[in-house]
Amino acid sequence: MQRSQPGATAASADLPDIDAVRAAAKRIRPWAKATPVLASSALDDRFGARLAFKCESFQRTGSFKFRGAGNAVLALPDERAEAGVATHSSGNHAAALALAARLRGIPCRVVMPRNAPAVKLAAAAGYGAAIERCEPTLDAREAALAAILTRSGATAIHPYDNAHVIAGQGTVALELLQAAAPLDLVLAPIGGGGLAAGVALTVKALSPRTRVIAVEPAAADDAHRSFRAGRILPSLAPRTVADGLLTSLGQRNFALIRRHLDDIVTVSEAAIVAAMRLVWERMKVVVEPSAAVPLAALVEGCVEAGGAHAAKPGGNGDRPRIGIVLSGGNVDLDRLPWSAPQPP
Amino acid sequence: MQRSQPGATAASADLPDIDAVRAAAKRIRPWAKATPVLASSALDDRFGARLAFKCESFQRTGSFKFRGAGNAVLALPDERAEAGVATHSSGNHAAALALAARLRGIPCRVVMPRNAPAVKLAAAAGYGAAIERCEPTLDAREAALAAILTRSGATAIHPYDNAHVIAGQGTVALELLQAAAPLDLVLAPIGGGGLAAGVALTVKALSPRTRVIAVEPAAADDAHRSFRAGRILPSLAPRTVADGLLTSLGQRNFALIRRHLDDIVTVSEAAIVAAMRLVWERMKVVVEPSAAVPLAALVEGCVEAGGAHAAKPGGNGDRPRIGIVLSGGNVDLDRLPWSAPQPP
Repeated sequence: MQRSQPGATAASADLPDIDAVRAAAKRIRPWAKATPVLASSALDDRFGARLAFKCESFQRTGSFKFRGAGNAVLALPDERAEAGVATHSSGNHAAALALAARLRGIPCRVVMPRNAPAVKLAAAAGYGAAIERCEPTLDAREAALAAILTRSGATAIHPYDNAHVIAGQGTVALELLQAAAPLDLVLAPIGGGGLAAGVALTVKALSPRTRVIAVEPAAADDAHRSFRAGRILPSLAPRTVADGLLTSLGQRNFALIRRHLDDIVTVSEAAIVAAMRLVWERMKVVVEPSAAVPLAALVEGCVEAGGAHAAKPGGNGDRPRIGIVLSGGNVDLDRLPWSAPQPP
Repeated sequence: MQRSQPGATAASADLPDIDAVRAAAKRIRPWAKATPVLASSALDDRFGARLAFKCESFQRTGSFKFRGAGNAVLALPDERAEAGVATHSSGNHAAALALAARLRGIPCRVVMPRNAPAVKLAAAAGYGAAIERCEPTLDAREAALAAILTRSGATAIHPYDNAHVIAGQGTVALELLQAAAPLDLVLAPIGGGGLAAGVALTVKALSPRTRVIAVEPAAADDAHRSFRAGRILPSLAPRTVADGLLTSLGQRNFALIRRHLDDIVTVSEAAIVAAMRLVWERMKVVVEPSAAVPLAALVEGCVEAGGAHAAKPGGNGDRPRIGIVLSGGNVDLDRLPWSAPQPP
């Protein structure tokens, strides 16, 4: 459904490795938050596991996206940075890039379709981005972005198909392992694959025995199908409550995922909403639907916490240790998915 | 509105001090969580301050109450503990006491009025408490509790008018100062006064120059009136969205508050709801209305972040540093205070 932005070409030599993730961690340390890893005895008992939740809802701009955008902006040499950065996005990446640019003191231009939610537009504008509206088609978005790049000399920062962005997202796993290792399994959501690729490469470098599984809405299962087919298949008319996971995989992301990810499983819409509510009720963390997708795999039982998918526990009846990435918390509090069927 | 439970007599010699708080911290360390202290640049900018939020929503059972209940249960000598503990409560203390008793392996009996919300009853029962229903009057509650004490030999653990409970709640401030000192001001909600007394005595012992202000709903302003009058005045038909702050002050709590608290201010219902929504949107932390009451004081401007109420900042244009206790997150997700005027 979504093609690449300018600047997103498949270059295997350009794939980030664990050194790039470590460099990203050092680079973004003054800007990004080292988010807490939280646990819940109630959820541990329910799923027969020891769950470690990496809470990126508390990251600046409300999602992990700030890590990748921050790393990409900080990695720009001064002479390129001056002209600023640009992207097209109607989601968390726009706000993240806007804040990163503001912190570095360079301009940020964001192309947004006319039908983008007002709240998303306000978020990016609130962090100082210059917003350019366009027709709500991918062609219009890409044309508008290309015109900006030509006019301004700005650097395009792709939301996920970008080596610095992937390395930045990998720092989520670096901190998760620092706080909660050893882990038998790590679960992360997958959309374009920035987070999933960064997490998978980091975990496999630092803890090869830990399995890494990405989780995707069944209603937007292009990554699952691509992983099985061995080539990128487009996202076809996805329609899911997890609005952060609509995009198709990027080239770099797919290359890394094939190399490092153990599996991709899919979950139902009902399981996503149930998992989201569980996190709010039991963890007291505001998460958006996309962030609840990994836990939905346990809710739905498509990843057995203690079963075939998790590495064997240390013995002595120990429960399997599972790291779960809660990717973000940007949700409209007036439109919660469980309040729809409520009477007025 | 609420009289004392059996076992709650005013004994000045029985007032906890900083050593009792330190002992509580050591005692509950294996059980309670050291909750994170979170910050938000957006809220800092909005209020012209540096805010440090102590997030007790993430505490076990979803509120700070587990600290006090845990300390009281652990402090019982074995020969008294055997017969168990009991209380009457329809709120967070019931769940906290139930879990503490379960962890120690002793019985817990809770008297709850017949009209207590099913969700609160389920929480306490879920942690293993034996629930006894009674008529929804204070006389009926006290009679039912007295009968239990006589019958079982259990020890009554008052929700707030209890030295061990107050000392346990003081550990909130101990951890807040460890994470965020130096602070110019600490804001905490006040209901019965367990948290406010524990926080005030701890802050004044460790950082005498830090001001401590308790915040109360104007619609349940008995603590404010009592503080001004110099004697405990009852809570008169309180009607506030902050359902954790309905009770009148306890004797021990009042004695400590008079000694250590700098002031009590009151806030409107609208400010409480606005502050609650700000915490959800900006901090991504699920808080109940009572927990939003301290921030409501900044929303309403009745505590000037950088003004008369806060100690002078360190100079150099530094913003005042304010610690805010987010006391808990047990809220019915189907009945959020801002969703009432929503269309179906």
